[in-house]
Amino acid sequence: MTEQTKAAVDFLESCRTLVDAELDRCIDQSAASDRLQDAMRYSVLGGGKRIRPALCLAAARAMGQASNSALAPACAVELIHAYSLIHDDLPAMDDDELRRGRPTTHIAFDEATAILAGDALQALAFGLLANGSGLDTESRLAMVQELARAAGHQGMVGGQAIDLESVGKTLTLTQLETMHRHKTGALIEASVRMGALSAEQVDSSELDALTTYARVLGLAFQVQDDLLDIEGSTDVIGKPQGSDVARSKPTYPALLGLDGARQHLAELLQTAKASLERFGPEADPLRAMADYVVARTH
Amino acid sequence: MTEQTKAAVDFLESCRTLVDAELDRCIDQSAASDRLQDAMRYSVLGGGKRIRPALCLAAARAMGQASNSALAPACAVELIHAYSLIHDDLPAMDDDELRRGRPTTHIAFDEATAILAGDALQALAFGLLANGSGLDTESRLAMVQELARAAGHQGMVGGQAIDLESVGKTLTLTQLETMHRHKTGALIEASVRMGALSAEQVDSSELDALTTYARVLGLAFQVQDDLLDIEGSTDVIGKPQGSDVARSKPTYPALLGLDGARQHLAELLQTAKASLERFGPEADPLRAMADYVVARTH
Repeated sequence: MTEQTKAAVDFLESCRTLVDAELDRCIDQSAASDRLQDAMRYSVLGGGKRIRPALCLAAARAMGQASNSALAPACAVELIHAYSLIHDDLPAMDDDELRRGRPTTHIAFDEATAILAGDALQALAFGLLANGSGLDTESRLAMVQELARAAGHQGMVGGQAIDLESVGKTLTLTQLETMHRHKTGALIEASVRMGALSAEQVDSSELDALTTYARVLGLAFQVQDDLLDIEGSTDVIGKPQGSDVARSKPTYPALLGLDGARQHLAELLQTAKASLERFGPEADPLRAMADYVVARTH
Repeated sequence: MTEQTKAAVDFLESCRTLVDAELDRCIDQSAASDRLQDAMRYSVLGGGKRIRPALCLAAARAMGQASNSALAPACAVELIHAYSLIHDDLPAMDDDELRRGRPTTHIAFDEATAILAGDALQALAFGLLANGSGLDTESRLAMVQELARAAGHQGMVGGQAIDLESVGKTLTLTQLETMHRHKTGALIEASVRMGALSAEQVDSSELDALTTYARVLGLAFQVQDDLLDIEGSTDVIGKPQGSDVARSKPTYPALLGLDGARQHLAELLQTAKASLERFGPEADPLRAMADYVVARTH
């Protein structure tokens, strides 16, 4: 493990502690149905690296804020991510029975409960953001706008729709990037931007630089995901290895070859870091996160 | 048709024109996937009485506002309603193939697209609210909080979970009311409260009165729904008649008998109107809507 990767792992660890406690608190408020609440807790609190919350908190740091000033958006983005995984795993979608080494939500509960748990988590994300303690009214509203755009038909859900339509098709590199920019990129971008928006003063050129960082990192994340699907073992990545290939989903290695995909990844990492040049050591957590994303093994 | 019912029908008609144009506009912005956008449009713009938007606009009127001042929350609440119908109709939930006399979304498209269209509509609702033109920052934020609570695990989705757990069970009147207060009541309450929140000055006792009106009307709405399921014909109500009974879902007529349910409905109507006593003619649309809800034939 390099110095930088270790810094990211430490940072992720401290974020996870902070974020998990807040997620635990906000799903602990009496739901109308115990079973629904159990399913929500199972899906959100059952592990996960918390990469998006960490990016959100790291972006707040880069803007000179204390990490916990962006706790509400960090948790909101994780709730959206968690709901999307539940719905993605459904039989009508990817039909996955295993996630993070545990039965997926519709297996552990049932399909109807899984659909509802996902729906409730999305509402909770927006509620958490709107009530975001420690943030002024304007920031909270800007974050709701940001998250709604990133999560909806012009963002994440739009990307999932493109993904469904792409199974078994040959995509060009541009089409593949469009899919990922929506499917995973939009939420990663929102994580970083919402973190930045927690600062009292946000300079638009700083926001632009962080947005570039997030966009490039989002693509890098996906390239590494594709590589892990080929190189990783089921045991480490928590889902059957080679599952994308088995479904003939378009991937970077399929388009660029293994070496080409690795080189593309290295270039993206360089670009992501270059976009942070204007920032001093306050952006070190973001730099470490970039290293982590390309070096991670699951 | 009584004078009051006719007034409600006219009011509903004018609301529908206003709301449908805005819904059409906001789902016309380029989605990442045409098929996803088509499914969203199919589900939202394929008819519907627009009772919730009308209640929202009527509540704004009661607070002395122009109807269109509450256009954003009126549309947001309809988007939430539309998404809940799509997910409710899914095979894993109610497994309905017909809605408003047309194939349900997962039949007209496919199950995965239906799940995603519902997900995207929920995000769109919050985005529309956060961008709500003509509303100040504080109001928009208060509305996002209101809608998030009403739509989530402590509101509508919580009620759907109770509903699922109640199939084939005998509920007490209190349990039945708890289910409906969440499943349909929460969103009706939010419709009225968000309409009121569009006013610049909201007196808490006025808001309380309108909340009581909405709560009682929400129950009345459900009693009438249960009665229509027994008395209406498939042709008029747009879904197979007697479908609740066939699934042994708990209903008011099952608990109170037909006459008992009708009497309960009349009492609820009276209570709803009594809660509006402090308001003058500016609340006439709300009064007309109460008459409409109990007199409607579908």
